Amino acid sequence: MDLLSIKDPSFLKTMNKEELQQLSEEVRAFLIEKLSWTGGHIGPNLGVVELTIALHKCFDSPKDKIIWDVGHQSYVHKILTGRADQFESLRQYKGLCGFPKMSESEHDVWETGHSSTSLSAAMGMAIARDVKKEDAHVIPVIGDGALTGGMALEALNHIGDSQTNMTVILNDNEMSIAPNVGALNNVLGKLRTAGKYQWVKDELEYLLKKIPAVGGKLASTAERVKDSLKYLLVSGMFFEELGFTYLGPIDGHNFDELLENIQYAKKMDGPVLLHVITKKGKGFSPAEDDKVGTWHGTGPYKTETGDLIKPVNTAPAWSALVSETVRKLAREDQRIVAITPAMPVGSKLEKFAEEFPDRMFDVGIAEQHATTMAAGLATQGMKPFLAIYSTFLQRAYDQVLHDICRQNLNVFIGIDRAGLVGADGETHQGVFDIAFLRSLPNMVIMMPKDENEGQHMVYTANQYDDGPIAMRFPRGNGYGVPMDEKYKKIPIGSWELLKEGSTATILTFGTTIPMSMEAAYQLEKQGVSVQVINARFIKPLDEGMLEKVLSTGGPVLTVEEAVLEGGFGSAVLEFAHDHGYSNTTIERMGIPDRFIEHGSVKELWNEIGLTSDQIINKINSMLPAKKKRA
Amino acid sequence: MDLLSIKDPSFLKTMNKEELQQLSEEVRAFLIEKLSWTGGHIGPNLGVVELTIALHKCFDSPKDKIIWDVGHQSYVHKILTGRADQFESLRQYKGLCGFPKMSESEHDVWETGHSSTSLSAAMGMAIARDVKKEDAHVIPVIGDGALTGGMALEALNHIGDSQTNMTVILNDNEMSIAPNVGALNNVLGKLRTAGKYQWVKDELEYLLKKIPAVGGKLASTAERVKDSLKYLLVSGMFFEELGFTYLGPIDGHNFDELLENIQYAKKMDGPVLLHVITKKGKGFSPAEDDKVGTWHGTGPYKTETGDLIKPVNTAPAWSALVSETVRKLAREDQRIVAITPAMPVGSKLEKFAEEFPDRMFDVGIAEQHATTMAAGLATQGMKPFLAIYSTFLQRAYDQVLHDICRQNLNVFIGIDRAGLVGADGETHQGVFDIAFLRSLPNMVIMMPKDENEGQHMVYTANQYDDGPIAMRFPRGNGYGVPMDEKYKKIPIGSWELLKEGSTATILTFGTTIPMSMEAAYQLEKQGVSVQVINARFIKPLDEGMLEKVLSTGGPVLTVEEAVLEGGFGSAVLEFAHDHGYSNTTIERMGIPDRFIEHGSVKELWNEIGLTSDQIINKINSMLPAKKKRA
Repeated sequence: MDLLSIKDPSFLKTMNKEELQQLSEEVRAFLIEKLSWTGGHIGPNLGVVELTIALHKCFDSPKDKIIWDVGHQSYVHKILTGRADQFESLRQYKGLCGFPKMSESEHDVWETGHSSTSLSAAMGMAIARDVKKEDAHVIPVIGDGALTGGMALEALNHIGDSQTNMTVILNDNEMSIAPNVGALNNVLGKLRTAGKYQWVKDELEYLLKKIPAVGGKLASTAERVKDSLKYLLVSGMFFEELGFTYLGPIDGHNFDELLENIQYAKKMDGPVLLHVITKKGKGFSPAEDDKVGTWHGTGPYKTETGDLIKPVNTAPAWSALVSETVRKLAREDQRIVAITPAMPVGSKLEKFAEEFPDRMFDVGIAEQHATTMAAGLATQGMKPFLAIYSTFLQRAYDQVLHDICRQNLNVFIGIDRAGLVGADGETHQGVFDIAFLRSLPNMVIMMPKDENEGQHMVYTANQYDDGPIAMRFPRGNGYGVPMDEKYKKIPIGSWELLKEGSTATILTFGTTIPMSMEAAYQLEKQGVSVQVINARFIKPLDEGMLEKVLSTGGPVLTVEEAVLEGGFGSAVLEFAHDHGYSNTTIERMGIPDRFIEHGSVKELWNEIGLTSDQIINKINSMLPAKKKRA
Repeated sequence: MDLLSIKDPSFLKTMNKEELQQLSEEVRAFLIEKLSWTGGHIGPNLGVVELTIALHKCFDSPKDKIIWDVGHQSYVHKILTGRADQFESLRQYKGLCGFPKMSESEHDVWETGHSSTSLSAAMGMAIARDVKKEDAHVIPVIGDGALTGGMALEALNHIGDSQTNMTVILNDNEMSIAPNVGALNNVLGKLRTAGKYQWVKDELEYLLKKIPAVGGKLASTAERVKDSLKYLLVSGMFFEELGFTYLGPIDGHNFDELLENIQYAKKMDGPVLLHVITKKGKGFSPAEDDKVGTWHGTGPYKTETGDLIKPVNTAPAWSALVSETVRKLAREDQRIVAITPAMPVGSKLEKFAEEFPDRMFDVGIAEQHATTMAAGLATQGMKPFLAIYSTFLQRAYDQVLHDICRQNLNVFIGIDRAGLVGADGETHQGVFDIAFLRSLPNMVIMMPKDENEGQHMVYTANQYDDGPIAMRFPRGNGYGVPMDEKYKKIPIGSWELLKEGSTATILTFGTTIPMSMEAAYQLEKQGVSVQVINARFIKPLDEGMLEKVLSTGGPVLTVEEAVLEGGFGSAVLEFAHDHGYSNTTIERMGIPDRFIEHGSVKELWNEIGLTSDQIINKINSMLPAKKKRA
């Protein structure tokens, strides 16, 4: 059929299994073709083609609420709900979002991006339905990786106890982004291989009847044997213990099994967990072969071969620069261990894991545990390196505050993907970290101007023994600058003068340094002499240098790729007013007080006015003659 | 024995069971006596007297690491580690902390206050031990309530999988602060009543031998029966599934069972979970009878009767004022549901629960789930009231950001215990919320000047339909002001002039209004005319009124009981500089950039300079003639 003609999923109701099968092949071909142009999360979506079709056939969206955990596997859902024609703009500026988005469709009842939220959201929707005495079905679809996130476990605990009606789809592909870890994964592994035991049940009942009926202890023993059969047979005792009816495991690419089990689950009372086994990348061999790296989420590629079409960037990726520097330091320093919450590949820790298998810990999607475990390590004199994306560090805010900062422990937090991240969009922008970390006592926050300074900062963090220290670095690659052979310790709280100038000052750091330098050189040509300072320590500030800047009386502009409310610029304002420089013209540029959607980083910079042109305009507007008010 | 003479726990090694029993009685009497003067967490500590003694007898602290989850049950540990003589200063300014504190003793290897951190910390310590090839034991002691916190579950998942050596003590008193909820609690309930099945095991093995040895299916069936015996017999299949050896349940007040099982656990390889049943308040009948309210944590009391010695305050408690207003509104508005993470009593939601049992949800210690569940409810047009302490909202930072604010959902967050909380100390101070919430787009933050304005704000929150809205309110009681009969809607982002004045302005809100007013009246007497503004909206600011204030050119002082970095004062600075008022003298008073320990709120205000005297000094220093720099 013509996928572009789909308006809503109602057409599925009349389709028979052969037609569904045909549709699933068309959807798969569509995804492989379209994503070859735009890139996107191909692996997760190829894995849920049949599952998504089956869910939309069996349930009535949007009355029934299908909730996609993480949401990067919602492309098939988008196709079935009338958005196939927008796939050419997928994950592009003003284009189709790579995650569910309420503004796109009434079928997107919950927006995601971060993992493990679907069960809590579903519980909220189920309560709303129960309070309103309505009868909608609520169907969260959660991966085995997301299930280990603490809030998903909190929600399981509540849902199981509540006995509300809900069909939880456990989409088990044995992976999150990386292969799964943890005891729960072992539980699932046992279930996956367990097969079905109906025949065992029949035979056991036969055997049980043979047990002589005696009184007293033996009788109760026989009773207990019968009770225990539930665990033996259902094999989902973990979930059964928590109050769920466990169904499965079933083949998530087989419509017979899917439709039969979903219909059965739909009729049951109380919470049901349907365990569906799927294959990430199903139907596209490059993606089936490499589930973790490229083919979890990819850029454009050739459909025939899976060869990637992308400009080669020879500068080191920031994640690699940081993790590799840590690895080199770990050779000399036995105290170093590395921790990642499910991002060994994204954080480029594979080589560290290879060289130091006993000192590398992938704890799965469990940011809270990762962070407090780092604190526990530090109490024993270790030097943990917590590799975590800015957006996911939000999950561990209290752990950074209560466990690391309050106890003033030597944890090095490598804040990856700091700043705007581009195509992943608003759920993943790493723009809040400065605001939420800067108010924590004992915290040191730094950001390097380039990868050479980056390696020195990693070394500095390793040498620092006075408490927590965090280094932000952006998504993507460095600039390819020459790298010093020997590591240098950068004095904590020291800034660096990048360009001299007498009229105005730009205070900036990290990714906004190049645009600031360009603006300063342009202004120079216009006769305005602007000094640019690499404010590489966001906390503590370089109070000496800042005092010098403020005492010139010239206007000061702060530029940062982070939210303005409570950000670096506010720290400068605070210092100025605390130290009697309340008459200096200080203005701030950064991320405005709204969520920033997806697009390339450059497009987003343009949108919010983080450009050299805007810096030039701003500086000009701040020059004494042009001040709005005296 | 003389408890005051204890230096460290080594004296326990030579004690026999009778002596241990005697000691436990002395410790219990000591606690009942000492806490009658100071108050404190008596219930939890009376419950762990024998357990603590047994742990210190069997293990070698501080080489072996005993980690107290939450930590309010560490008083017996403090007595056994040489701090009995400090109990007269318990939870008082500069006195003994009510939680573990590294600076007090080398036996306090981990500091707590918030729940559910012990397992992650223990995992960090176990990894450090393993990497260093040492042989210390690691013994986290976690309550059944704390076990439902997401990060504890994340840690169980990792520990069980790692198979590292660890003895987890599950201190099961069937309670957190309130009676426990959730499916895990049901699992524990089954275990509690299961008793011991050693004898069952013997008989079952006898029966199994009777099963005829046949080939094929039946043989494998018999194998499966044997496998399933583990679950049947141990009864701790939930924990066994996660990779733990489950021991118990045992009587936590019986030294025979405690010592035998702890010694046994100590010798085992891999992670062990020892399930210990204790009774909160054990040995003091008022505390045994009321485990939830007064006798979880209490003020001073009479030891004979349990009668509380405390000044009667007839003004309504803030928590009651808020929850009762919500209850009244819920009669008219069916969309209102209330959610608490394990604090139905602290948040005074008992009456709401009684009147609306189907619209009240205690989700246990699970702040993340509570918050995202509120978001899920809001997507369905409900008006959830999330009652949460400021310090515990830290646990749900990403849920507020990613789920509530990003989706701009109508959730009313009642931020209880905002500001300094007193005796609970640094882990519980509610001083970060403004800094971490203010940088979130769509968030409205308000704080009332008194309980009458408070009720109007609750009403305002209910009427507000444009996204999330939070109301901070302090611990303790209101002022006893007259209450309006009819609710009023307060315009969002509106401030209120409390006192006119022409020379300077104080911008303040909530608890710091009285000291500001007093300062203003004193200054008036000194000839300095100061206006005081109730800046009841922290976000959005009252831009009109602020612009008016700034355009006077007079100095502006902000006063807040919250951290200064990124706080309300910074918002005022940001506005001033964004709008061209960069020449105004603006200074800020609030909580400095360090953690604030325990003490009465007044003592802490004095320590950090939040007093009317300091406000007077500050205003005087800001007057034009006295400015430090021109």
